[in-house]
Amino acid sequence: MDDTIHAGTDTDSRYVVATYRLRDRADTLEARAEGIAIGLTIGTWTDLPNARKAQVAAHCGRVEGIRVIDEAAPGGVIAEIDIAYPVANLDTTFASLLTTVFGKLSMDGEIRLQRLHLPEDLERAYPGPKFGVSGVRERFGVYGRPLVMSIFKACAGLTLDELVDQFGEQAAGGVDLVKDDEIFFSEVHASAAERVVAYREKAREVAAQTGRETAYAVNLTGPVHQLRDKAKRLAELGAGALLVNVVAYGFDVLADLARDPDISVPILAHPAVSGALYGSPNYGIAADIVLGQLMRLAGADMGIFPSMYGSVTLGGEATEQLLAHLRKDGVHRKVLPAPSAGIYPGLVPQLYRDFGIDLILNAGGGIHGHPGGASMGGQAFFDAISAVQQGQSLQAAAVDKPALAAAIAKWGARA
Amino acid sequence: MDDTIHAGTDTDSRYVVATYRLRDRADTLEARAEGIAIGLTIGTWTDLPNARKAQVAAHCGRVEGIRVIDEAAPGGVIAEIDIAYPVANLDTTFASLLTTVFGKLSMDGEIRLQRLHLPEDLERAYPGPKFGVSGVRERFGVYGRPLVMSIFKACAGLTLDELVDQFGEQAAGGVDLVKDDEIFFSEVHASAAERVVAYREKAREVAAQTGRETAYAVNLTGPVHQLRDKAKRLAELGAGALLVNVVAYGFDVLADLARDPDISVPILAHPAVSGALYGSPNYGIAADIVLGQLMRLAGADMGIFPSMYGSVTLGGEATEQLLAHLRKDGVHRKVLPAPSAGIYPGLVPQLYRDFGIDLILNAGGGIHGHPGGASMGGQAFFDAISAVQQGQSLQAAAVDKPALAAAIAKWGARA
Ligand SMILES: [Mg+2]
Ligand SMILES: [Mg+2]
Repeated sequence: MDDTIHAGTDTDSRYVVATYRLRDRADTLEARAEGIAIGLTIGTWTDLPNARKAQVAAHCGRVEGIRVIDEAAPGGVIAEIDIAYPVANLDTTFASLLTTVFGKLSMDGEIRLQRLHLPEDLERAYPGPKFGVSGVRERFGVYGRPLVMSIFKACAGLTLDELVDQFGEQAAGGVDLVKDDEIFFSEVHASAAERVVAYREKAREVAAQTGRETAYAVNLTGPVHQLRDKAKRLAELGAGALLVNVVAYGFDVLADLARDPDISVPILAHPAVSGALYGSPNYGIAADIVLGQLMRLAGADMGIFPSMYGSVTLGGEATEQLLAHLRKDGVHRKVLPAPSAGIYPGLVPQLYRDFGIDLILNAGGGIHGHPGGASMGGQAFFDAISAVQQGQSLQAAAVDKPALAAAIAKWGARA
Repeated sequence: MDDTIHAGTDTDSRYVVATYRLRDRADTLEARAEGIAIGLTIGTWTDLPNARKAQVAAHCGRVEGIRVIDEAAPGGVIAEIDIAYPVANLDTTFASLLTTVFGKLSMDGEIRLQRLHLPEDLERAYPGPKFGVSGVRERFGVYGRPLVMSIFKACAGLTLDELVDQFGEQAAGGVDLVKDDEIFFSEVHASAAERVVAYREKAREVAAQTGRETAYAVNLTGPVHQLRDKAKRLAELGAGALLVNVVAYGFDVLADLARDPDISVPILAHPAVSGALYGSPNYGIAADIVLGQLMRLAGADMGIFPSMYGSVTLGGEATEQLLAHLRKDGVHRKVLPAPSAGIYPGLVPQLYRDFGIDLILNAGGGIHGHPGGASMGGQAFFDAISAVQQGQSLQAAAVDKPALAAAIAKWGARA
């Protein structure tokens, strides 16, 4: 390859740099990397006349690094390679980004997209969160502590009255948000709009007694071309947030929602289907890219991901990297992490240590399963929060807090 | 589980049946399957009061089958399980289908979605191809033989004049379609609309001499909310087909295009990024579901997939299943398969045997790499087609067909 197109550093603002983990033959690794860099950008290089080289050089990819990680079968290696793709080849969609860095290449044997570095100018071309951590806090009036979010139990088949009752019970515990189950699509008994209206009425009724109005994160469903209008209507009707199955719909669908200034509520991104991309260690796309980096770029204000406390976790390193994507300083607002599965009141001190206060305590079973019901389940989380905030142990605090005491008796507590 | 919700057969029109391959402990396999069927539909069953059971039974999933495939580590097994999910839980989006059958479950350890059975009523709720095999043939006036499609070489950085020249050279070979490279997003030198107009003019110029007007499959790019209008405009300007990076955008984005009656040109689905879903044998979603079943439901008229002749293939069984999805009798029009990579003129007899005539011969290197240039490259495919149609061997036909002779000299021929 001509040296003229090797100018620049690895933070060169003209390139997206993708790092892949792959299996290949040791003796063809370098040729493979060059083949990717050239083949997936301008097709050929060495055969081009010089005038054409000058013309297309700005569109040509380049190999930034090749590292052998491990030996494999005779003559084989596991390696990491870094390929730089010119930003000039992209538009500002995820379709162009993903097709460029992992389009054909995703079908090219054992290969995994491990890291993705976007220059700031390109990041800026994506919407990012409209609210972010501080905007979400403002919106829900929650400062100095984690938010508490309760998850509806499965709702299919329930009447609107029954759903409102379930909402009311959760709201009575003082939770900041109640979110739909991500698998709730059926609108036979009540449309999303009807739920938003009815839950809001119930939330105000409860708030008249508790002083806290619980918001509702409604599952945004339906054909893509109707989602923006539907989102606006639900927001106008009083939805607190929009739950979006981002991977199932596509990242550009989320970006479209985030780019629309008239959609005036935060977006809660659900990770459904993402395991189909990140599950394998050898194929697909790393979890921190899917659930961290791309979610923030596309405009998630709150991001759900599998917690490290449940039965299936991402692993420590992936979780750290995911969190870094959601929270590091950058051109976009920061995302509130909502680690999910295995969250119960006794875990709150640990959650503070692992995440700090910019966090959503997102619980389903850990609220509904409370011996005193969902209302006491929510209360137990707030009991735990105030204990931690006051530097008290949960056990000490539980002495005069029956909701917390019952939660600890059932699920235990981590110091 | 109560027997009352086990009524029905495996072709019960009220259920989508998903088959998973997973790794688990032998002694908890049955509980795992029950946990999926109940947990991912109505949450709980045994604890429900009888009145509630009657109310939600129609929304409850059920275990249809459990088959141990192999022993794994001590106490472990590889198994296939079939879970039936009520259609009543879904709307008519891919987001709801994928989130229901492989939402949370995709994040639940080593598990792969292997098969998906949709009842016909649900299939009917998806758009399917607007044109299908016969509609595409009518549109391009091609009967009784495979279509021939040429792929633009990498285009980034080329001026409109240079692009038009490249189009003209390909058209001169008589190919039915010329498709954009799926990685062509840059519109610095020429917008998609400008290309459509300029290529069409060139196509007519060439047709004045050859008698055949070559169509252009333009890459449909940009933000999701603009795609329908852009597609209509490009069709009005004379685009022959729309190339869509379906997996990168999301299946619902394709369905939106297919559902719009004003988008009056066929859709060519590209498989970019699909390997991130199907690559691993143990995780993700099987290739035939992604590139066959879902593509047809979502409305692809022509479907590109990795051929069994290239360096990386799907394997014989997956290819067969994929083809079955594209072609079997069903509620939707059939999809024209476009097996890609490793297609050259000498392979045409083999392609006839493997696929029959309802097929797209889709070639990049096998056309541009012809010693006589892209024009003779296209011609060589037509030489090969007419030889096969006349029951002649390629070698015999090549005697007075210089384009085919040169192709065979370069790439060889399979009898
Ligand atoms: Mg759920
Ligand atoms: Mg290509």
